[in-house]
Amino acid sequence: MKPFSNEIDYQCWLNYEHIKDQSLLNEYAKYLKNIVINENSYIIDSIKDEIYYSINKILGISPLINNYTNSNKFITISKIGKNNLVDSFLKDEEIIAIDEEGFLIKTVNSHDKKFIIVTSKSDNGLLYGTFYLIRTLQEKKLLDDLYVLENPKTPLRMINHWDNLNGNIERGYAGKSIFYRNYELVDNLDRIRDYARLLSSVGINAISLNNVNVGKEEARLIDDKIYIVETLYEIFKRYGIKVFLSVNFASPIMIGGLKTADPLNKEVNEWWKKRANFIYDHIPEFGGFLVKADSEDQPGPYSYNRNHADGANMLAEALAPHNGLIIWRAFVYNCYQDWRDQNTDRAKAAYETFIPLDGQFLDNVIIQIKNGPMDFQVREPVNPLFGGLKKTNQILELQITQEYTGQQKHLCYLVPQWKEVLDFDTYLFGEGTSVSEIISGVPFNSKKFGIAGVSNVGDDTNWTGHTLAQANLYGYGRLTWNPELKSSQITDEWIKCTFGNNSKLLENLSNMLQNSWTIYEKYTSPLGIGWMVNPGHHYGPNVDGYEYSRWGTYHRANHFGIGVDRTLKSGTGFTRLYQQPNFEMFEHLESCPEELLLFFHHVSYIYKLKNNKTLIQHIYDTHFEGVEDVQELINQWIELEGLIDNKRYQDVLSRLLEQKEHAKEWRDVINTYFYRKTMIYDEKCRKIYP
Amino acid sequence: MKPFSNEIDYQCWLNYEHIKDQSLLNEYAKYLKNIVINENSYIIDSIKDEIYYSINKILGISPLINNYTNSNKFITISKIGKNNLVDSFLKDEEIIAIDEEGFLIKTVNSHDKKFIIVTSKSDNGLLYGTFYLIRTLQEKKLLDDLYVLENPKTPLRMINHWDNLNGNIERGYAGKSIFYRNYELVDNLDRIRDYARLLSSVGINAISLNNVNVGKEEARLIDDKIYIVETLYEIFKRYGIKVFLSVNFASPIMIGGLKTADPLNKEVNEWWKKRANFIYDHIPEFGGFLVKADSEDQPGPYSYNRNHADGANMLAEALAPHNGLIIWRAFVYNCYQDWRDQNTDRAKAAYETFIPLDGQFLDNVIIQIKNGPMDFQVREPVNPLFGGLKKTNQILELQITQEYTGQQKHLCYLVPQWKEVLDFDTYLFGEGTSVSEIISGVPFNSKKFGIAGVSNVGDDTNWTGHTLAQANLYGYGRLTWNPELKSSQITDEWIKCTFGNNSKLLENLSNMLQNSWTIYEKYTSPLGIGWMVNPGHHYGPNVDGYEYSRWGTYHRANHFGIGVDRTLKSGTGFTRLYQQPNFEMFEHLESCPEELLLFFHHVSYIYKLKNNKTLIQHIYDTHFEGVEDVQELINQWIELEGLIDNKRYQDVLSRLLEQKEHAKEWRDVINTYFYRKTMIYDEKCRKIYP
Repeated sequence: MKPFSNEIDYQCWLNYEHIKDQSLLNEYAKYLKNIVINENSYIIDSIKDEIYYSINKILGISPLINNYTNSNKFITISKIGKNNLVDSFLKDEEIIAIDEEGFLIKTVNSHDKKFIIVTSKSDNGLLYGTFYLIRTLQEKKLLDDLYVLENPKTPLRMINHWDNLNGNIERGYAGKSIFYRNYELVDNLDRIRDYARLLSSVGINAISLNNVNVGKEEARLIDDKIYIVETLYEIFKRYGIKVFLSVNFASPIMIGGLKTADPLNKEVNEWWKKRANFIYDHIPEFGGFLVKADSEDQPGPYSYNRNHADGANMLAEALAPHNGLIIWRAFVYNCYQDWRDQNTDRAKAAYETFIPLDGQFLDNVIIQIKNGPMDFQVREPVNPLFGGLKKTNQILELQITQEYTGQQKHLCYLVPQWKEVLDFDTYLFGEGTSVSEIISGVPFNSKKFGIAGVSNVGDDTNWTGHTLAQANLYGYGRLTWNPELKSSQITDEWIKCTFGNNSKLLENLSNMLQNSWTIYEKYTSPLGIGWMVNPGHHYGPNVDGYEYSRWGTYHRANHFGIGVDRTLKSGTGFTRLYQQPNFEMFEHLESCPEELLLFFHHVSYIYKLKNNKTLIQHIYDTHFEGVEDVQELINQWIELEGLIDNKRYQDVLSRLLEQKEHAKEWRDVINTYFYRKTMIYDEKCRKIYP
Repeated sequence: MKPFSNEIDYQCWLNYEHIKDQSLLNEYAKYLKNIVINENSYIIDSIKDEIYYSINKILGISPLINNYTNSNKFITISKIGKNNLVDSFLKDEEIIAIDEEGFLIKTVNSHDKKFIIVTSKSDNGLLYGTFYLIRTLQEKKLLDDLYVLENPKTPLRMINHWDNLNGNIERGYAGKSIFYRNYELVDNLDRIRDYARLLSSVGINAISLNNVNVGKEEARLIDDKIYIVETLYEIFKRYGIKVFLSVNFASPIMIGGLKTADPLNKEVNEWWKKRANFIYDHIPEFGGFLVKADSEDQPGPYSYNRNHADGANMLAEALAPHNGLIIWRAFVYNCYQDWRDQNTDRAKAAYETFIPLDGQFLDNVIIQIKNGPMDFQVREPVNPLFGGLKKTNQILELQITQEYTGQQKHLCYLVPQWKEVLDFDTYLFGEGTSVSEIISGVPFNSKKFGIAGVSNVGDDTNWTGHTLAQANLYGYGRLTWNPELKSSQITDEWIKCTFGNNSKLLENLSNMLQNSWTIYEKYTSPLGIGWMVNPGHHYGPNVDGYEYSRWGTYHRANHFGIGVDRTLKSGTGFTRLYQQPNFEMFEHLESCPEELLLFFHHVSYIYKLKNNKTLIQHIYDTHFEGVEDVQELINQWIELEGLIDNKRYQDVLSRLLEQKEHAKEWRDVINTYFYRKTMIYDEKCRKIYP
């Protein structure tokens, strides 16, 4: 195996940097010269490829990979029950503790031998264990006393691609699709394999291959264009990743020649069943369908006066005999709202659509729920559907691609944002039912739970446009495996694997990443109000851009105040969708978290925040600070010159400089907008353009 | 000749309605049975076609068209000096009074004969005279005592097409191009001939065939795609219309393979000269080039540190040997302005660019100047370049297509707007130098003056999308011929020729048309400020849509007031670009015409207008009134049911209903925007959404 490109930024965190410390090299070489692998499968082949390649790069030696070794120091990688030596060192409680996809790594001292076991109950587990072991080397940790037992905390760990067959990516900011070009597969399959390596190295086990907005050409992926999916399936299965497809609910009409797609129509049911048989004939381990129905002009069951349970269950029945899943998006709302209507609240839409159907979905249906009730804004409360659904399988949907968070031109590390979502206590089954807990499936005793993230990769050499945006993909993957990981740990891991272990580098880059979301939030829309962006492409400031539109996205700013009153007492009643005590917390101005103040309340500009600043002064201050903070990011990055390769240094520097100019634009537009509206001066007399 | 389509709305004002009044029919038939035409040319052929076709339709008889007639009542159409009978009845002073393109129509009583002379010094003049005579029939006027001597008051009477070769029309609202499809000519040449008939019937004598933004494909029109232009030329020349092409200033690079387009480079000069020879080899009567240079990212002389005189003169030298013209657009401004910069004023750009070059342009260069200093807003002052240039040929550019005036979904009859522009006294050579006067060329003793209008036609059956928008094309043409015509006369003519002579119809429709611009202005952006539209497509309200942008288009609204201070005393000094007394008039709040108040001044919302209303109350009132007025348009139209054919009735009705809904959207967005900003209540307590 050889990565498609030698460019340093292409390797991401699988950038197996050669170790220069001779004593560490010697120490590692003892174990790593000999690898025992006595099984065969396509995933095992990938393991062999990766271990051979990584040891070559990190240590500069070619390990021997065999069924057996005479050496007294070695590493053995095998499933439980497949290697007597390994089995003899496993305790019963260890075997019980390892879940299907989990793994155990431990260093064994025995007579003359000292060796490292990597074991699991599945090939996937072995793969994850192997990548864990390689990361241990990248982090330059010692091997003499390893003991790691890890199980993924989330069953479904998924990536969603919004790639179209023509090669464009909806909300893609890093070039064209790595999969498609001109309605066919790209030539470059090695790059797709490298992508699979990146994903499986952080534990991803599922991928949807095409945009949730499914066009005419994409609909053919479950028909005469299935050969494209087959090829991708062959690549991803070697890395334990199941492939899914987004389908158009109207497929029976689009490609089936039927006159209806009514989910209760017999012909339609038959058509989908035949379609499922056809798919599984070609792709025996096909994962299932992802469906955006009755959403933003996509067709769905509403066209036939059916509900979403009717729609999802019909598809679920077709895939059930093959163990396929239906992942059904909860992103359903009226996108033809009248801005004059202050009663309708888009934030309530998913809850109101799906709560009445709780318990009506078949077991192989999963509802995929965006983290917030709106749409991937810089700051939103957690979607109250988490905390509402009690009898329905659920997946959390995050957006790795930075649609509203700087489009990979701005640095915005999203792990801290995601952590807040995951840690939020919904109180669904009393205190302690965090979003993490829900998506683990444990409270529901089900494996059909998980997490999905919208991909941020394209065919730019560095995959993500902004090199530091690679950290979002890494961090996303790590959180799918273990939502309880600390942001700081993930960040450190990523820096070490991507750039190396220099302490200045770790300090500065970790600071930069950890603060970047807050910085971005400071100079963009304030206190959870969102949507102050240019319509359509969503880049750059436009305070009224979505104010008089049909999208249900309003800030209601007037001369006296701003914000949407979503309280039960005087507003839309959205707060009531939360369990107690969250309802009370959001309902009252005093207890509402200030970073979400304007999401829940209409607030006077002279309202005093907890820090004793007025709201308007807070807006001015954060916007000036935001730009200063970006300068600080630049300063910290400049200190790293020479500590990292020039290519990545210059790439990031140029983006940071662009970010600063654009942050000024944000600052000035927002400040001027509110100054013109309120005519309240900045207390500190800084420049606000009149 | 047979029009391409029989549909009633396709015929426009050449809808030769059959006369039902038998006595009038008899009266007309006496003259019209016999037509004497004793010349031949391709324009004469068109005259014969049109007279034969129109008499057939209007009278239901087929006239005899011959060199000679024995009848004692007839019509004779011939140039001066071509028919002895005609010549013998022309007085010397008449012959002198008729200009090159003018015509004389008079009824002659002689012995036993009574006949009508249509004569001219040119084929074009005969064509215009013929159409005039036909219109006399459409208006049901008697022929016994005709005496009409008309000369066009404007030498160049031009239509600009913004059609692209792919078939799209920039700012087109009536379908695709009638010329091009998929980078070739359309199949349907008859339709193009019908278009030529429409144009020449109102006196148009020049047309530019492609968009001023000239792409790669369009650049080839002066190269290997010239066959397309040849075919169009063959059609238009039969109607006395000269063809022009828009060219890209960088053509030497784009299609010539040169490395520069520097106007002072010898190779570039040679290239253009050869190109000119090539064009005139194919199109002997080619009109010349229209050029958008250094404007909105189009290339131009600035790229080579040359000025616009250098650029235009270089092209002019290439065309001069062939009597070709260079029409050079004055629409030059910085489209990368910083909204924070309040000193730069886009309104000054054309003046500041071209005044220093006054007198430096060659005689075959004409500067084409938009009516206002910005860009075709609902209301703008006249461009001060008219009234500035003293030694330069000038064309007035109007926009017939309704980019900012309702996109042919709203009824907006532009003749009243254009009349205000034409009647505006620039005081260039003292009192009485109106824009009409300037573009007549008389004060400059030059024929290289005129008027150009951006076409509003596409391949919709009715040409203009909104059937009543046909009136804008008609009115435009009539004003090019005679800018002093009254709006009411043009309107009446158009109604009679298009719909007939019913008095109710005349009353209502004339009211609707004449008031429509004011109505549109009422519910859109107030008092000359403009630009409160959605960026890009320019349809629908968006108060801040162009406020924080790079286009130099700002309203500067804050809590206290709105408007751009363009005074010399405290603003950008734009007012000073006008001659006295216009400068003084615009400079002072008290004397500034109120409809332009916010264009010239930043005004408090509580400023009292002359009617004693505050500015904010004026905004509220006009916006409520505007919607009511649209309802009145609908009421007036509904009264016409049965008086016109159902097709056109329903078409217009559906657009009026759409206009009303959209007028409400305008009303509510504008009112809410200003209410939120000022928090001043509507005195009349009408519904303003909070």
